[in-house]
Amino acid sequence: MLVKDLQSKKGWWEPFDRLLIATGALPFCPKVPGREAAGIFGLHSLESGITVRRVIDEERPGKAVIVGGGYIGLEMAEALTLRGLDVSLVDRAPQVMNTLDPDMGALVSEAMIQVGVKLYREEALEAFEVDGGRVKAVVTEKRTLPADIVILGLGVIPNTELAARAGIPLGVRGALRVNERMQTEIPGIWAAGDCAESFHLVSRRPVHIALGTIANKQGRVAGINLGGGYATFPGVVGTAVSKICKWEVARTGLQEHEIRTLGLEHVSATIESTTRATYYPDAGPITVKTLAEKGSGRLLGAQIVGIERAAKRIDIFATALHAGMTVQDMINLDLSYAPPFSHAWDPVHIAVRQADRAVRSAS
Amino acid sequence: MLVKDLQSKKGWWEPFDRLLIATGALPFCPKVPGREAAGIFGLHSLESGITVRRVIDEERPGKAVIVGGGYIGLEMAEALTLRGLDVSLVDRAPQVMNTLDPDMGALVSEAMIQVGVKLYREEALEAFEVDGGRVKAVVTEKRTLPADIVILGLGVIPNTELAARAGIPLGVRGALRVNERMQTEIPGIWAAGDCAESFHLVSRRPVHIALGTIANKQGRVAGINLGGGYATFPGVVGTAVSKICKWEVARTGLQEHEIRTLGLEHVSATIESTTRATYYPDAGPITVKTLAEKGSGRLLGAQIVGIERAAKRIDIFATALHAGMTVQDMINLDLSYAPPFSHAWDPVHIAVRQADRAVRSAS
Repeated sequence: MLVKDLQSKKGWWEPFDRLLIATGALPFCPKVPGREAAGIFGLHSLESGITVRRVIDEERPGKAVIVGGGYIGLEMAEALTLRGLDVSLVDRAPQVMNTLDPDMGALVSEAMIQVGVKLYREEALEAFEVDGGRVKAVVTEKRTLPADIVILGLGVIPNTELAARAGIPLGVRGALRVNERMQTEIPGIWAAGDCAESFHLVSRRPVHIALGTIANKQGRVAGINLGGGYATFPGVVGTAVSKICKWEVARTGLQEHEIRTLGLEHVSATIESTTRATYYPDAGPITVKTLAEKGSGRLLGAQIVGIERAAKRIDIFATALHAGMTVQDMINLDLSYAPPFSHAWDPVHIAVRQADRAVRSAS
Repeated sequence: MLVKDLQSKKGWWEPFDRLLIATGALPFCPKVPGREAAGIFGLHSLESGITVRRVIDEERPGKAVIVGGGYIGLEMAEALTLRGLDVSLVDRAPQVMNTLDPDMGALVSEAMIQVGVKLYREEALEAFEVDGGRVKAVVTEKRTLPADIVILGLGVIPNTELAARAGIPLGVRGALRVNERMQTEIPGIWAAGDCAESFHLVSRRPVHIALGTIANKQGRVAGINLGGGYATFPGVVGTAVSKICKWEVARTGLQEHEIRTLGLEHVSATIESTTRATYYPDAGPITVKTLAEKGSGRLLGAQIVGIERAAKRIDIFATALHAGMTVQDMINLDLSYAPPFSHAWDPVHIAVRQADRAVRSAS
């Protein structure tokens, strides 16, 4: 392995018995005019977050435009709104949070508008207007949005160029192909984190999901194996959570379009309830969408949008997905209840009961 | 069945094809001197809650004594403290919340003291002092506590006296013995709710747990069956949750003394973490105790004490208990993470990793 000291610029060949590739992922930036201008920020590292905060403190930008309505977009919309900026968000999809089905994404779009974000949906980024090396506006298919600061939240791509050039086989979306022990297909070379694939336990397909939870688990397994131990990483079910101000968003499992792509058939049920007993102070809305396989009733996925204390319930669905439960199994889950926390029938129960009815009437 | 109209006092024999016994449970009150005095309240019905609130509003009691440190005791301690009363709580056990192991119960005792409750542990109720028909004090083995109002939170007993006299077999703790369809042992007679047993899926023994969650599920199953349908109630895992001011308490599965009684062997692990990422606003302490079977690592129970947003994580353990997971299985659960919600390793992950280490070192 050729190693280069970035300070002295010296290079040398370093032999290894075992190599771990943990190069992570890089923020995606489309090759549009003006993308090198000052004032355009990705949010990939702690440093980039600190830089954005410093720029806001020192330069007092008034207008912010966020490109991309995923997790980063949502969280930056919250942060910039709370800092008093005038925030616009551009997303090329019909709804923000495209890891949710569009009907649930629409609830997040509404929440975003409610907290004061100007939302421009179905508008792709075309260019940045630049003046004196600094970004001045974001140009979409439909309009030009003035911008003192631009945040890119367009997702990441696995940082595997070097590995690919070395001949290490890539898998889905350019991520390194690994087995359950986090071994690549080249003996002695391992990979873990945002540069590596995971196995999706519901779709039974490799996936690339760049999240700290998965990276940590993969790193643990790779470390045990590299150290001479034995561990496997069975896979993921696609759980994620985010928030914007008082609104919480969570998802796990497969989306409807993924289920269809797999050639499976499903039913869905969406219910509305409250986060706490309806009469309890600070109870607020929660919407739960459940996806279950037609015929079998096997849980395939769930999505939650609601106010504070809504989202962490996604972990119940995630655990049930790991266990391969049906929505019928889930009806009798002994979930916790007291009025500050839930209803005697938790919103999760209400959701799976509705999904069970949908399974029965579709059979 | 002999029915009596409580208003007209008339009685008649009512024939039935199918009978459901849903007589619930009655608050337990020990037969101590003075127990009939005014100012002593159980909290069994909505009406009893309304009565206590009215008494506080109208009579402005200064000193409240709560007897019993379970869910009712905890919740009433919160309510009365928030209403500005001087609150004492008497419990005959070494720690409040005896559905937790004593080490975790001690955290709840501390929380109770922290919110301003005067706590008297290992003191059994002996009598009430009465003056002119009104309660004046609670007498324990060790002291006399002046009281303007007394709340009893000593648990409930199944209301099955009538059923027992009719010859319907009782099971554990005097609850009606039922099968998975909620049938008693007498053909045509069914039972559901706080008067009936449940099957405990971890101990594989009948139990009597009087909680609204279980009563609702049993009622649904009994109703389907009585209506000519078919449904079964597989059982419970012993989940419960409560709070006192900002402190949350939750439990599921078996306690250490229950595991020992079953002749099983276990390891335990207790970890401390925070409810949100440590740097995130309003992150606060969470303690998680996990109990796993020696050898197999099968999850047997979990207990949580922590501040707001700590307790609902018990549902992850409850779902894992339903699925028969080991603590090792749980290490790779794809649980949700973003800094406002958790760590990349959720406190549940940290807990089961520690429990897994305990299982390995005990083998």
